[in-house]
Amino acid sequence: MRKFIKGIDASPGVAIGKIFLYEEKELVIDKGNVEDTDAQKKRLLEGREKTKEQLLVIRETTAKKLGEDKAAIFDGHITLLEDEDLFEEVEELIEDDQITAENALEQGIEEYCEMLANLEDEYLRERATDLRDIAKRWLYNIAGIEVADLGSLEANTVIVAKDLTPSDTAQVNVDNVLAFVTEIGGKTAHSSIMARSLELPAVVGTGDVCSQVEGGETVIVDALTGDVIVNPTDKELEEYKAKRDAYLAEKDELRKLKDMDAISKDGVQVGAWANIGSPNDVPGLLRNGAQGIGLYRTEFLFMNNDRFPTEDEQFEAYKSVAESLEGKPVTIRTMDIGGDKALSYMELPEEENPFLGWRALRVCLDRPEILKTQFRALLRASNYGQIKIMLPMIISVEEVRKAREILEECKAELRAAGVAFDEDIQFGIMVETPAVAMRARSFAKEVDFFSIGTNDLTQYTLAVDRGNENISNLYDTYNPGVLAAIKLSIDGAHEGGIPISMCGEFAGDEMATAILFGMGLDNFSMSAISVPRIKKNIMSLDKKECEALVERVMDMDTAEEVKAEINRFNAIHFGK
Amino acid sequence: MRKFIKGIDASPGVAIGKIFLYEEKELVIDKGNVEDTDAQKKRLLEGREKTKEQLLVIRETTAKKLGEDKAAIFDGHITLLEDEDLFEEVEELIEDDQITAENALEQGIEEYCEMLANLEDEYLRERATDLRDIAKRWLYNIAGIEVADLGSLEANTVIVAKDLTPSDTAQVNVDNVLAFVTEIGGKTAHSSIMARSLELPAVVGTGDVCSQVEGGETVIVDALTGDVIVNPTDKELEEYKAKRDAYLAEKDELRKLKDMDAISKDGVQVGAWANIGSPNDVPGLLRNGAQGIGLYRTEFLFMNNDRFPTEDEQFEAYKSVAESLEGKPVTIRTMDIGGDKALSYMELPEEENPFLGWRALRVCLDRPEILKTQFRALLRASNYGQIKIMLPMIISVEEVRKAREILEECKAELRAAGVAFDEDIQFGIMVETPAVAMRARSFAKEVDFFSIGTNDLTQYTLAVDRGNENISNLYDTYNPGVLAAIKLSIDGAHEGGIPISMCGEFAGDEMATAILFGMGLDNFSMSAISVPRIKKNIMSLDKKECEALVERVMDMDTAEEVKAEINRFNAIHFGK
Repeated sequence: MRKFIKGIDASPGVAIGKIFLYEEKELVIDKGNVEDTDAQKKRLLEGREKTKEQLLVIRETTAKKLGEDKAAIFDGHITLLEDEDLFEEVEELIEDDQITAENALEQGIEEYCEMLANLEDEYLRERATDLRDIAKRWLYNIAGIEVADLGSLEANTVIVAKDLTPSDTAQVNVDNVLAFVTEIGGKTAHSSIMARSLELPAVVGTGDVCSQVEGGETVIVDALTGDVIVNPTDKELEEYKAKRDAYLAEKDELRKLKDMDAISKDGVQVGAWANIGSPNDVPGLLRNGAQGIGLYRTEFLFMNNDRFPTEDEQFEAYKSVAESLEGKPVTIRTMDIGGDKALSYMELPEEENPFLGWRALRVCLDRPEILKTQFRALLRASNYGQIKIMLPMIISVEEVRKAREILEECKAELRAAGVAFDEDIQFGIMVETPAVAMRARSFAKEVDFFSIGTNDLTQYTLAVDRGNENISNLYDTYNPGVLAAIKLSIDGAHEGGIPISMCGEFAGDEMATAILFGMGLDNFSMSAISVPRIKKNIMSLDKKECEALVERVMDMDTAEEVKAEINRFNAIHFGK
Repeated sequence: MRKFIKGIDASPGVAIGKIFLYEEKELVIDKGNVEDTDAQKKRLLEGREKTKEQLLVIRETTAKKLGEDKAAIFDGHITLLEDEDLFEEVEELIEDDQITAENALEQGIEEYCEMLANLEDEYLRERATDLRDIAKRWLYNIAGIEVADLGSLEANTVIVAKDLTPSDTAQVNVDNVLAFVTEIGGKTAHSSIMARSLELPAVVGTGDVCSQVEGGETVIVDALTGDVIVNPTDKELEEYKAKRDAYLAEKDELRKLKDMDAISKDGVQVGAWANIGSPNDVPGLLRNGAQGIGLYRTEFLFMNNDRFPTEDEQFEAYKSVAESLEGKPVTIRTMDIGGDKALSYMELPEEENPFLGWRALRVCLDRPEILKTQFRALLRASNYGQIKIMLPMIISVEEVRKAREILEECKAELRAAGVAFDEDIQFGIMVETPAVAMRARSFAKEVDFFSIGTNDLTQYTLAVDRGNENISNLYDTYNPGVLAAIKLSIDGAHEGGIPISMCGEFAGDEMATAILFGMGLDNFSMSAISVPRIKKNIMSLDKKECEALVERVMDMDTAEEVKAEINRFNAIHFGK
């Protein structure tokens, strides 16, 4: 019977294959008393050893397929597995309560996870998820129940599961697996991130799907729209094969752009850059032909930690990215915490309106030691590539000057210590408050470059929290007020003779390429995956025509009119 | 011994007088058992009667001094006092527990207040404060302890107290009392509001002061700075007498401006209007010579209520203000709840960033029945004066159009019903988001007038919550980005041929008069108390010079430079 299931498009692509239903086999735990507790302890230990062996295999497969970075996750898992405190506690439970190894392990893990859940430290709290993942495998191994092996599936398989854990996805063999469909999760869930890394189409958050399929059915996964069709009609099969082939052909074509520049038909070039959150994102960026990094969000270095990263730790991260980019620009934003981003080890005040609060550079200027450590690390790393320093959440020229003073202090210290750094390191700011957009000229005199952060700029210009569902219909970067703020920023930068980039989500919005190019944006920085398409868009455009489009659009009063005009223009130039 | 005490300047002025220490006499309640419960019940009743007599006297004094509006508070107090449920409960306590009238009353009141405190309804919860105020008087009357009579103090008295309740301040005879000093409270506390109504200098929030004085000392109250000096030196006395006389002379001089227009030396006139929160504010407004109302905040009508006010209730409030203003403009803003303003009877969603949330017109457009009721009331009231309708929190032309559609619907209904209203009623918007400032031209085509709300406009332009103490140093309307937003709004209004007012706090900021006048602001709307001074400022200015000042200022990069330039200019033109 044909079934249509709607989910969230978490990793793009179209796949047609057979369903493998990845369900947990039921584990019934014997809760009765046992006499031979030593036998149970032996089972516990053997289960652990088997689990370790499996994890080591997964680790190796991962290292080969995805690199050492991703494989390192499993080193952490093995360390957790071999925690001796935990092991002794479970042994005691077996001995004291005269219970089975499974029963004791389940209780012991639960207690341990509860203890973790009560900790202040967010990092440690999150380890509970990993521990439950490992414990499940361990329990199954004690009980001798085989854990489904995702590494040896038949060809053309689509995995349908409630959720996929890190050890699940790590086993997946991309030669045989075409796509994922999971009941839970959103675009930022682990399984979604892995799907994008593996470049497999994925639809997540479908709700109850496992009980609707048996396995073996033919399925269409349209991860461009989030549609899943089980037992499709022949007509649908034909239709979606065409859609899949067109998608793959386009992907191939886009891949060819990898080494090409983004130059318009009338010869105007822009930079096609990518945004990253960690050195792990560099391979994807290079694979997609990004010509630089317009935004390296260093806050992840601060958030995935249980204390402030040291100068050396930061230096290593920045240096590794700088080296990988081989002289291409690497724009590194200073710590942007606060707002909706917390640190487990630094108490931020409870605020009524955190997006209008003590965040980002405001924190750094009040705690200059944080900024100083980061500046020193950035300067040292600048010796290994083309690093640019970028400040977030600026509202006044005074803030820029204060930060620059601290930077100059760091430079003087390094000079005195004989440490090499790029004496001409570029120093710029994000344009993400209306205050800066309004007076871009003033700021252009103070810095070497601008980068527009459209998410915050839209949020503040419209007074709309972008995460607030009650008013999500009001959040619209095409609002003429926001477009005016973007244009003012670009004009101000060029009046002051400095280049301007955009690293907000709008830069990767295909619909916006023409208008941004027409306004004179110098560099587009976006998700690596969007780079080829934006390059292609630029190649289909003529700067003069885009300027005329901008002139027409800036005279319009509503977002509706603006979008209609842009769509008309795009239909002509991109043919869709 | 000389003592210097710092507090908050809650009502302006300078006073020099003798301290009257208004302390509560201690009331020791006999907690033992009594035999004659009937005697206790008689005491309870007699105490209530005496309290009622006192409250009636206070009511009459208040009506004479401050008008029927303020006196009506005491009708409410008398109703609470005569609550028969409460009385019977206390009688039962006397009977059942065999206790004194004071003991039973204290318990009964506490239970009643606790019950009130647990209610959802904010209005009823606040009645607990009133009830405690009344009960105190009642208890003292039962016990036969005289309650200090603030109505018959010696001449030249400064009242020093922990706090002053409504019944305290109502008794004050302004012929004898020169000023208040209270330990608790802020600028919006009841005692502060009363002090401003009575035009008495007041310093509040001094912390422990009652234990530092005995009564009878000479005291200087400088409510321009918040300084209180007990037992001042002769030199200080002389100095502050001069300051007081200068203040009074200036006040006299400003009063003379009451019936004058705000016309500059080169003949350019602006409107000097006031902001109000309820019809009760009208007398003060007229006393200070305001020529209209630039902002009537109707949300107080909604907040001081336990349900949505009906169309008729709203109509009466708007009509009363329109009539009192005798044809002068009355700009009425539609309901502005959300953000930091809640309603007890309408659940607003919990939001991460309420200032960037579902508030003001956003609520009204999602619940059009609220807006419709208000529009109908406004239209009906427009038959009794010059009412202008003003929409808050606009970010798009579409919102304006939607609201206007609803207004036209209401007009059609009234026309059909033969109800008279002003067919030419003006329809305008607040400029308080950067989105509107950026595209003021577009909006000017849609409405009859603008009014700049500088509090929100500053907050959004700078991404700084104005109530957040961690970043209060960043909230600055002189930030060049905010000034640019104000100027863009004024230019946009005039380009579109409509007038523009300002009803944010900046309009009453004396330092800002020249720059706002130079930018071309048409109407200044502020606290009534600021009206004379702003009128006087305008009269000392020359429009052309102010325009030149604006040109210089708009070329500056920092708030520091801007303020220095304005101060230089003001020193020349205002002589200070």
